[in-house]
Amino acid sequence: MTDLGFKTIHSHHHHHGWDNSIEPVYRAKSGETITFDVIDASNGNITPDSKADIILECAVETANPTTGPVFIEGAEPGDAVKVTFDQYSPSGWGWTGIFPEFGLLADQFKGPDLRIWKYDDRQALYSDMAKVPVRPFTGTIGTALAEKGRHSVIPPRHVGGNLDIKDLVAGSSIYLPVEVAGALLSIGDTHAAQGDGEVCGTAIESPMSVTVKVELMKGENLKFPRFDIPDNALVSSLRKYTATTGVGPCLLTAAQDAVSGMIDLLTKQQGVNAEDAYMLCSVCGDLKISEIVDLPNYVVSFYFPFSVFE
Amino acid sequence: MTDLGFKTIHSHHHHHGWDNSIEPVYRAKSGETITFDVIDASNGNITPDSKADIILECAVETANPTTGPVFIEGAEPGDAVKVTFDQYSPSGWGWTGIFPEFGLLADQFKGPDLRIWKYDDRQALYSDMAKVPVRPFTGTIGTALAEKGRHSVIPPRHVGGNLDIKDLVAGSSIYLPVEVAGALLSIGDTHAAQGDGEVCGTAIESPMSVTVKVELMKGENLKFPRFDIPDNALVSSLRKYTATTGVGPCLLTAAQDAVSGMIDLLTKQQGVNAEDAYMLCSVCGDLKISEIVDLPNYVVSFYFPFSVFE
Repeated sequence: MTDLGFKTIHSHHHHHGWDNSIEPVYRAKSGETITFDVIDASNGNITPDSKADIILECAVETANPTTGPVFIEGAEPGDAVKVTFDQYSPSGWGWTGIFPEFGLLADQFKGPDLRIWKYDDRQALYSDMAKVPVRPFTGTIGTALAEKGRHSVIPPRHVGGNLDIKDLVAGSSIYLPVEVAGALLSIGDTHAAQGDGEVCGTAIESPMSVTVKVELMKGENLKFPRFDIPDNALVSSLRKYTATTGVGPCLLTAAQDAVSGMIDLLTKQQGVNAEDAYMLCSVCGDLKISEIVDLPNYVVSFYFPFSVFE
Repeated sequence: MTDLGFKTIHSHHHHHGWDNSIEPVYRAKSGETITFDVIDASNGNITPDSKADIILECAVETANPTTGPVFIEGAEPGDAVKVTFDQYSPSGWGWTGIFPEFGLLADQFKGPDLRIWKYDDRQALYSDMAKVPVRPFTGTIGTALAEKGRHSVIPPRHVGGNLDIKDLVAGSSIYLPVEVAGALLSIGDTHAAQGDGEVCGTAIESPMSVTVKVELMKGENLKFPRFDIPDNALVSSLRKYTATTGVGPCLLTAAQDAVSGMIDLLTKQQGVNAEDAYMLCSVCGDLKISEIVDLPNYVVSFYFPFSVFE
């Protein structure tokens, strides 16, 4: 694991779920740079040699282990913690899976299914079928809730957590609300690439280390996380976009229709099977709300870059 | 109005609402290029000299007049019409408004409010406050429903209509389901720029002419519209993105929270008033679904390019 001369929080210092009674593993000053070593979302159960059945052995209670928590000195409720992602040191492999009863189209895709990816600095290979640009980011980053007890890591909340925002790449910064003294920052669920929506429920799940700068912002009173993305982080080599749509009175159904439509198109035009299409959609397709005002019907569009097949 | 040597459907050949009994104004062959002259969404009520009160005089019954319908020879139910946007000839002015009881934050913004924009080929000026890149596209494009009677033009449907998909720019193509003989294609609601979501309910609404190529695709059996975007159409000069989020069990509420958060940020950081912030959000901010699988909570993010203030 990488040590850049700054403090490293090793991955055995991890926890399952959010709980403000978990003892901090480190006390950081505002402005400090820290490396978090992150276990993958399967808690290390999935390896490069795993087969699909391993999916059924991954317990939800140990999913998304988060490294930390780090106590930020001076942080009080009402403040914000600004976390700037300086560098990712990816592991070179990852996985995408379909879990039973999980994912946007859980009614159509029963799982278990699993694909292993190999990647370098530039691209990830989905067997010989597709090449996806590598864009490492942090899937789970959050602070502790004021509410006592253990809270599942799966749902994100107003203090962050399992946000799965694909633009938390190197150079970006996120501002997280603070609800307890010291904020209690933890990081997990690193991804080598993902599309907006993470539609099959998993990205390119990949263990890696993340180096961040933490800064305390007094009295921000944020209601929800906010993030900044530098211009160079939005440059992509993805091309040849086609979008399918869903139109109707429910945003969720419209999103499901849009993704279903893309899976139909990928199976028809590219000859991939439906499970591969679904997982590729999760890794490089983007869900956008095209219009949210022309009541009673919304338009959700799913953008997919066909250049990944070249 | 522009006549490029191809057939032009002039704007007096327009209709209000979708109705498959409306007589076609032209019969087109597959492969033909046609120019549609389009009246703005206010049905010509708003002019460059209008004040906000005009908003209250715009009747919903005459909103979004659509030019057409055009009968596509050979089109039968189950086919698709492919429409490629060849060229826009914009008028150089447009408007953005807030209508009472309309828009994503209708509970917070009562209207009426109105801003007039001037624009050239490159950028639109929002008074001296902001500059937004001009990116003309078609807000409303659809075919007639099989169901008899008049159907409001406001909601989009599975055959298209008021889709407000911002990427239907020159070079893009849309594929629309056909439900009646001849398809009965109409076009309206041209915009000089818009963000994903059209959050305040209006874009830069602007009369213009649209030149398209229509092609018949037999037996496509599309459930919803689909569209292709050429790589050069996705190049943008917008920069300095910051995103606000909404996190929770309802996608609509999450979208409202994300946009509210951005309006708060714009008023605080840029000193613009809330109505201006809301309208700018509609014109150049984008609603994305960051994750739709980490139940019970979704993350919707609203991306805004702060470069528009430079």
